[in-house]
Amino acid sequence: MSLIRTREESYINLNPLQTGGRTNAEVRLTAASFVDGYSVCDYCKGVLHLIEKPSICELTKDLAEFLGMDEARLTLGCREGKFAVMHALLSVQGAIVVDSNRHYSTYVAVERANGKIYEVENTGYPEYEIRPEAYRWVFEQVLEETKKPPELALLTHVDGDYGNLVDAYEVGKICQEYGVPFLLNAAYTAGRMEVNGKKLLADFVVVSAHKGFGVPGTIGVLAISEKWRERLFRKSIKYPKKDIELLGCTARGGAAACLITALPYVKERVKHWNEEIEKARWFVEKMEALGDIEQLGIKPTKHDLIRLKTPLLNKIAQKDRKKGYFLYHELEKRGITGIKPGQTEWFKLSTYGLTWEQVKYLYGAFEEIKDGNRSATI
Amino acid sequence: MSLIRTREESYINLNPLQTGGRTNAEVRLTAASFVDGYSVCDYCKGVLHLIEKPSICELTKDLAEFLGMDEARLTLGCREGKFAVMHALLSVQGAIVVDSNRHYSTYVAVERANGKIYEVENTGYPEYEIRPEAYRWVFEQVLEETKKPPELALLTHVDGDYGNLVDAYEVGKICQEYGVPFLLNAAYTAGRMEVNGKKLLADFVVVSAHKGFGVPGTIGVLAISEKWRERLFRKSIKYPKKDIELLGCTARGGAAACLITALPYVKERVKHWNEEIEKARWFVEKMEALGDIEQLGIKPTKHDLIRLKTPLLNKIAQKDRKKGYFLYHELEKRGITGIKPGQTEWFKLSTYGLTWEQVKYLYGAFEEIKDGNRSATI
Repeated sequence: MSLIRTREESYINLNPLQTGGRTNAEVRLTAASFVDGYSVCDYCKGVLHLIEKPSICELTKDLAEFLGMDEARLTLGCREGKFAVMHALLSVQGAIVVDSNRHYSTYVAVERANGKIYEVENTGYPEYEIRPEAYRWVFEQVLEETKKPPELALLTHVDGDYGNLVDAYEVGKICQEYGVPFLLNAAYTAGRMEVNGKKLLADFVVVSAHKGFGVPGTIGVLAISEKWRERLFRKSIKYPKKDIELLGCTARGGAAACLITALPYVKERVKHWNEEIEKARWFVEKMEALGDIEQLGIKPTKHDLIRLKTPLLNKIAQKDRKKGYFLYHELEKRGITGIKPGQTEWFKLSTYGLTWEQVKYLYGAFEEIKDGNRSATI
Repeated sequence: MSLIRTREESYINLNPLQTGGRTNAEVRLTAASFVDGYSVCDYCKGVLHLIEKPSICELTKDLAEFLGMDEARLTLGCREGKFAVMHALLSVQGAIVVDSNRHYSTYVAVERANGKIYEVENTGYPEYEIRPEAYRWVFEQVLEETKKPPELALLTHVDGDYGNLVDAYEVGKICQEYGVPFLLNAAYTAGRMEVNGKKLLADFVVVSAHKGFGVPGTIGVLAISEKWRERLFRKSIKYPKKDIELLGCTARGGAAACLITALPYVKERVKHWNEEIEKARWFVEKMEALGDIEQLGIKPTKHDLIRLKTPLLNKIAQKDRKKGYFLYHELEKRGITGIKPGQTEWFKLSTYGLTWEQVKYLYGAFEEIKDGNRSATI
């Protein structure tokens, strides 16, 4: 029996994981047409990125250009791209410097690659900011401890906890100064806003297409600068078309065809990034004005991923029969989903891709919940 | 603009990569419903294999049982499963013994894991058989060279060149005798025929679901026996739910939901494996009776993947205006696809999932091509 999931047409989905990965009608048609396993391999040319029909060879060139890098390959997602870079660059217990706002998969990828992690701390409550200059301090610490620079530095361009945008160019400059290869995790930026890896002085850019390019998963991009080609895309001795770090072919399914369909839309949507920020800022301002609600992370926000501390809602929850679950249910009644059931002290949401009308409806829902519950408890 | 691919409803697709990965209507409905990126993560429980809605937690238990193993995880495909095992088990330049009929990705995965490969040769033309006893000889060679047993042995249960089924149990016995962990690559068997890893004495079974379980890609299964749990599924120090070798979560997209839908159908279809072999054997017999056509690999075949040496068709090609491409075009005219354009000296095809009517139609097409071309050149 088939499984049915309520999609965004009928519900507003606030889950930050998902707002940038929603597919449009064109992409869904491609997905339906390429639904069978190995569907993109009808006209295999020996390796995924050389396939001409569908035109994955053009896609990878387009992606390299779109990300401002020299060469790109499809991956199975962002974490798989990160691991590929780490696996290619890190020696046993080699030092890698990462920001402390990094995704858990960055940490796990370092563990798998058997590297040694050094973290750049954020500034703590309430902004939890990663300041580029802090990379310098950690580089110095590594130099002192190991007598050599780190083997790799990773920056989470926008993190998944606070939606903080970091000045990647400033981090890139410090990396250049110390001769440290620079890996930019653009999971929450590429596909939403313009990301030009070279302008940001990145050696590697990794991307999650199912998170940021409006396609089904799992698929990502690893884009690199020329000088790393031999190292990252080293070929099998016996199979000279096959990239060892990619095990030959990565996203060998319908998602690759979907990305071809999605890319023109993505190129267009990044031009409208300012509107997305406007919506997010408007929403934050209105929510804070409800009282006893505070946006965490840098202010005003520069991203659609919003983290709110919500004592207001937590107090209501204490008095509600459903306790912490009241908020989830109240939102659900209003056709809104994507906030974790049980959360009321704080939560994350994303306004990405919502129309102004939807953002206003969303705020209205919280206003109603506040008022409705207040009147019920007076 | 969306991309359209002609699907199997209108064409008979002979590509062996694809015949076991064709989706049914129920699976396509699930795929359409879970088309958005990260769609299965609505109710995340901290890691993919614990998600209850859709029921991936039940799915992984079912898969372990279906494959006759103790525990299973989703992977992003068969090669990713192989690499995970190799990465967890092999030391630097550690010896791994594999059959010479292995897929290229086995070789590339060993290169990526930095292991040293020792190959068990097949018997050469015309059967290209892997004899279990030959594993013993190679184990002895490794013992002599390195003074210790290999760190891992891999068997390709059925290979992708000849469709040869190897007696995995006999290989398993030799592995046990030498104390060598045994990895069974069931990409071309699991989902088609019954595969019980424990009965075959396997320590690890890797599966390609987009190749063998009728679901969109990319997704696979890694099933292991109890004693390898700590090693293969070791957890992150900081994130105790996350499997390091899997980078936390693997097939975090609609394919996981599709596999839930597909599994009951797959459980049913493996019961009809004998009919699939009957069809393949009938087809081979008829093709050989056309004259100057020879099936390579063990005979009679035990699998739907059929490799034919076809001097008959090659001779026709020499005289045809389209040369080697004539066969591809002749088949296409008859609604048949999946044989590589340009091939006439030999080719691979798979009859898996075709009805008897379709198999007869397929043979009829070759008969027509032979006769039609003969009459044209007399």
